Order: sequence, then C-alpha cells, then structure tokens
Amino acid sequence: MIATPYLLYLGHSSDDIGIKTSRGLAVFRPDICVGEFRHDDCPLTLGLARMDFAKAVRAGARTLVLGIANAGGTLGEDLIADSIAAMEAGLDVASGLHSRLKDEPRLVETAARTGRILHDVRDPQPGIPVGNGRPRGGHRLLTVGTDCSVGKMYTTLCLARAMERRGIAADFRATGQTGILIAGSGVPLDAVVADFISGAIEQIAPAREDGGWDLIEGQGSLFHPSFAGVSTGLLHGAQPEVLVMCHDPARTSMRGLPGRALPGLAECIAANLAVARLTSPDVRIAGIALNTSAMAEEAALALCAEVSAETGLPCSDPYRMGVEAILDAVLDPAFARAA
Amino acid sequence: MIATPYLLYLGHSSDDIGIKTSRGLAVFRPDICVGEFRHDDCPLTLGLARMDFAKAVRAGARTLVLGIANAGGTLGEDLIADSIAAMEAGLDVASGLHSRLKDEPRLVETAARTGRILHDVRDPQPGIPVGNGRPRGGHRLLTVGTDCSVGKMYTTLCLARAMERRGIAADFRATGQTGILIAGSGVPLDAVVADFISGAIEQIAPAREDGGWDLIEGQGSLFHPSFAGVSTGLLHGAQPEVLVMCHDPARTSMRGLPGRALPGLAECIAANLAVARLTSPDVRIAGIALNTSAMAEEAALALCAEVSAETGLPCSDPYRMGVEAILDAVLDPAFARAA
Repeated sequence: MIATPYLLYLGHSSDDIGIKTSRGLAVFRPDICVGEFRHDDCPLTLGLARMDFAKAVRAGARTLVLGIANAGGTLGEDLIADSIAAMEAGLDVASGLHSRLKDEPRLVETAARTGRILHDVRDPQPGIPVGNGRPRGGHRLLTVGTDCSVGKMYTTLCLARAMERRGIAADFRATGQTGILIAGSGVPLDAVVADFISGAIEQIAPAREDGGWDLIEGQGSLFHPSFAGVSTGLLHGAQPEVLVMCHDPARTSMRGLPGRALPGLAECIAANLAVARLTSPDVRIAGIALNTSAMAEEAALALCAEVSAETGLPCSDPYRMGVEAILDAVLDPAFARAA
Repeated sequence: MIATPYLLYLGHSSDDIGIKTSRGLAVFRPDICVGEFRHDDCPLTLGLARMDFAKAVRAGARTLVLGIANAGGTLGEDLIADSIAAMEAGLDVASGLHSRLKDEPRLVETAARTGRILHDVRDPQPGIPVGNGRPRGGHRLLTVGTDCSVGKMYTTLCLARAMERRGIAADFRATGQTGILIAGSGVPLDAVVADFISGAIEQIAPAREDGGWDLIEGQGSLFHPSFAGVSTGLLHGAQPEVLVMCHDPARTSMRGLPGRALPGLAECIAANLAVARLTSPDVRIAGIALNTSAMAEEAALALCAEVSAETGLPCSDPYRMGVEAILDAVLDPAFARAA
C-alpha cells in the first residue's frame, strides 16, 4: 500500500489535462492530500497549499504523487531531479507514468540510500487471466467516451456516490492510475499485456449476487486510433448491462491527434453498443455525461438540454449538476433505447 | 538472432492447433528444420525425422523451438524438463509461450551452466511508440478472421509468395511468434502492452513509396471476447488498403470457448471494414480464405465456389488451391464491394 497523505505534483505542467491524476486526487480524496508541488513556471493550481518537499514533510505528507500524464508516459529529467529531492526530504514517490521509476537507476539508488519507497502504480499485479466472455451475474455499468480524458472517471465516481446515497451497494472499479490511487485497488489497464485486456476486467469486476452494482471506469475511445484496442477489450471484459457515454463538448480534435475529428454522439453510442453486444447482448445506453467545465453555467445547462432532446437520453455534467436523471435511467431496466 | 537450423518440439501434444508454431516452421521454412521431437504419447507428426536431442545435435540442429501453444501460454513441468535435457545435449531453446523461459530459475541455471541461450520470442523489443493513425503512404494488406487460428498467417505468407512470383515487392510483416520465427523479425503483438498495440503495427509496417506491399499477419478476431482488443488495435495500426477474411469452416465454436458461435462471414466482414475505416476510410475487402484442411478436395472446391457466390468475393484455400483470384482482386483498386 502507498503511504498517505499525499503531496500532489504539478511540476512544470501547463496543460490542464496533463495534471488530471493530481486533480482527480484533489477532487475526490481531499482528505488524503496535504498540498501541491509546482515550479514557478507552472500556471496551474489544484487549490491546495503550495509546498516544497521539506514543508510537505513537516505537514505530514508521506508520498509525492507524480500525478501528471503525457502521451507515451516518459520520465523526463525534471521529474527525475524532483523525485530525488523529494526522497532526500523524506517522501516516498508514486508514479502512474508508463516509464517506471524502478527502471531509472538514479531513482533506485536514491531510494536505497534514503530508505524511501518507489511505487509504480502502472505495474499490473501478476496472475491476470485470459478473458472468457462467459455470462456472469450482477449489475455492471461501464463509462465509455468519444475520446480519451473526457470525464469517464469523474462520471463513474459520481455515479458510485449517487448510488450509495440511494442506499444501493456500489463499487467503483478503477482501470487507470488516478482511479487506482483513489480507490486503493484496480487494474492499470493500459499497461496490461494485450492478450489479457478483457480478462483483467473480468477479474476486477467478478460476478456479484447482492443486487449491487460494479461501476467500471472506462478508458480511451473506440474512435481513438491509438487506444481503441484497450476500449474494445474493456467493453468485452466488462460485460456491461448499461453504458454511459462521456463527452467533452470543448474538444475540437481527438486527444493528441490534431486534425482528427471526434465522432458524433449517435455514431459513437451505436458503435459502443455493437461492440458490447458480443458479451452482453441486452446492453443499453442510459445517458450522456458532458464535461462542461469550460462553459458558463447557463450555456452548460442549455447544452445538456439540447443534447438530451437530440438523443432522447438524460444528459448532465455529473460533477457540476449531479447524475440523478442518468441514474434513474441506469436503474430502470425498461429504459432502453435502440441505437 | 536465433541460431538455425531448428529442432521442432511437439512434446506430448495431441491437439493439432496446439502445435501450429512447429507446423508453420515445417511448412514455410523446411530449409531450416532438421527434425521433430515428440514423446511416445504424441500422435502428431510434421513429417520430419523424429530425433532425440543428441541425434538432433549430431544432425546439425542449433536450437530447440518450443513451437507449441496453449491458452495462457504457461510453461509446464514437461516443457521445463525437456528444455533442460535439450540444453544439456547442446541446444539453445526458443519459445513463443507467454510464460518466459528466463523467468524459470531452473532454465536460467541450466543455460548458465551449459553456455546455452534462452530465446523468448514473445518479448517485444523496447521503444514501441504510441500509434497516431496519421495517413501514410504505401500499399498494405491485413488478414482478418472469424476466429483465432483460422489461417491468417498461412494466407498472408501465401499472398506474399504469390506477389513475389508476379514480380511485385512484398514484405510479410509478422505479428505472432511463428511468423517472427519464419520472417526473422516482427512484433509479438499479443505480448505488447495494451496502449501500444496500434503503434507497434505502425512501426513494423511504415510508409513505403516503392509501389510494393506490406502484407500484415492478422491476430485474433473482432468476435473473440478474449482477444478482440488486439484485433482492433491491429486494424487501426495497419491502416490497410485491403482486407482478406480468413475462416475455418470446420470450427463449430470460437477457439477455447465452447458454445460461443462464430460470426457469419458477411457480419464479420462488415464489422472489420467499419473498424478499419477509422484510419483507412477507403478500405476494401478482396477475398475470403478458407482453411479446408479437414475436407476432401471436391467438397473443398465446392464450398469455396458456394462462399464466393454468396459473398461476391473470390474464395479459396490459399495453401491448397493458391491465391491467384484473391490476388487479382487485391491488386485491382476498382475491386471494391460495399459491406
């Protein structure tokens, strides 16, 4: 287990999407975040107290979380230097980057010398099985998206909390590094070996018979040419009873691929239902979650109403407006819409 | 590089599909295979001389190829014992199983003691990029399938040879362990980390401007719930101009999943074209390759004619009947069929 509380790393980041792991922790687990670390050229903040490593240690922090993301997940010189300084100040270091802390000799040497621990959250646990697609009991929901980083984790967490408020057993099943740091368990799906993608999801969301729900965090998009394989295996492994489609209306091109247009919502819903049917023939779509964080409130509400009218589905920004209408549709087996 | 010639391992196998790596080498590279090793309870043969390890060494063999496959790719006690005996007799050992030779301490110890080399063909090379889906030049063909193990590698190799016979530059791009052993290079796609599936294919089949073709070996099936993520990323990374659909008419259920029906050919073609269009909007299907090895010749010819009439596509068993009609359609840009 990773020692808490955390100091959240922003470093030199200037891209808000790039700090989504740090932000997700600040939003959903403020109880275990004592502060944020950022360099002078970083224009971003999580609204936490800014601290250097020594001050964070005095404030009780146990682990520096390198909660930043970049395509390919490489470990730059600035991250290495900051991690060394953090360990020398008394912090462990946790990372969700593809490049592993344990593969960088300077970090391994510093950890050994200072007695600190390196956590690579993206290292999957051993023993993941090959998926089998056999029908299993229980209610499962999967969030899917028009693109990467459009709010699937937020939506899933909001749905889990809303279910709990209604007294329904609900387990958030994490599939990415932020979700794993939030939930304390899960599978770093994009780091799983390709043959085991669907099996990894069958493992973290097994059959359940208590009437409760597994709410599975989606990854990528069927329409993202870099990551659609992950999304496909996730749909098959999740065997979802219900999908919720996530979308960022401010996105003008697919994440990391300038010039590549996003799919339309109807097209994207139809494609996801078609893929999901392989293991869940009666899968249905229950709603659309928009990330309206860049919009004024009135415009955001108007857009949700417009999308809802166009698609016939409940639509909201889960974090900003709640998910009650979507949750009503999730819980109503009669709410089904042909795509 | 793996030292040749090879001794091909059958072991205790009794399932013909399970020895497909050994068989593929015997069929496509007989020039580098000196014999086969099998235990007395193995009812299968590749038609090569049966040899124990000492005899194989005397016949010039340099490497024992563990050319057998099983779901999950585990390394059993019999494989370990045989590999130790092979090294003690003077052979290196090459394996395409998921479980790595180098992770078994007894094999590592024996290799060190005897000076032999362990080759894990399924270890991808470092430095695979994330895919980007950007249009790239050159002709590319991808074989796809209704299921796993239905003849995609054979079909791809037969097409490459037929192109070469017509004087067209053609490169077989291997994506599985057998193909890699045959071609001498490629990527073990099912062992690549999930985020890099499409990038791995972009890397092994880069843009080409010589008018020649990259013929890419397919993997899995969009309709196999264990492996469809791999097939999806492969379609996106391949950015294929042409697909050829492979099918085994003797298959009664999806490989490894009793009771799960195969998709229909038309449904499977339509789904593959739809996925491929994300990165190759003008992709077309050029033919159907059947594995008729279990059928008498007359019945096989009749079935191909029937499938061709039903689908409007050329259809043959590539290994048995050649691929000339399919190749004509591959090379004719006007040959396109809406699915």
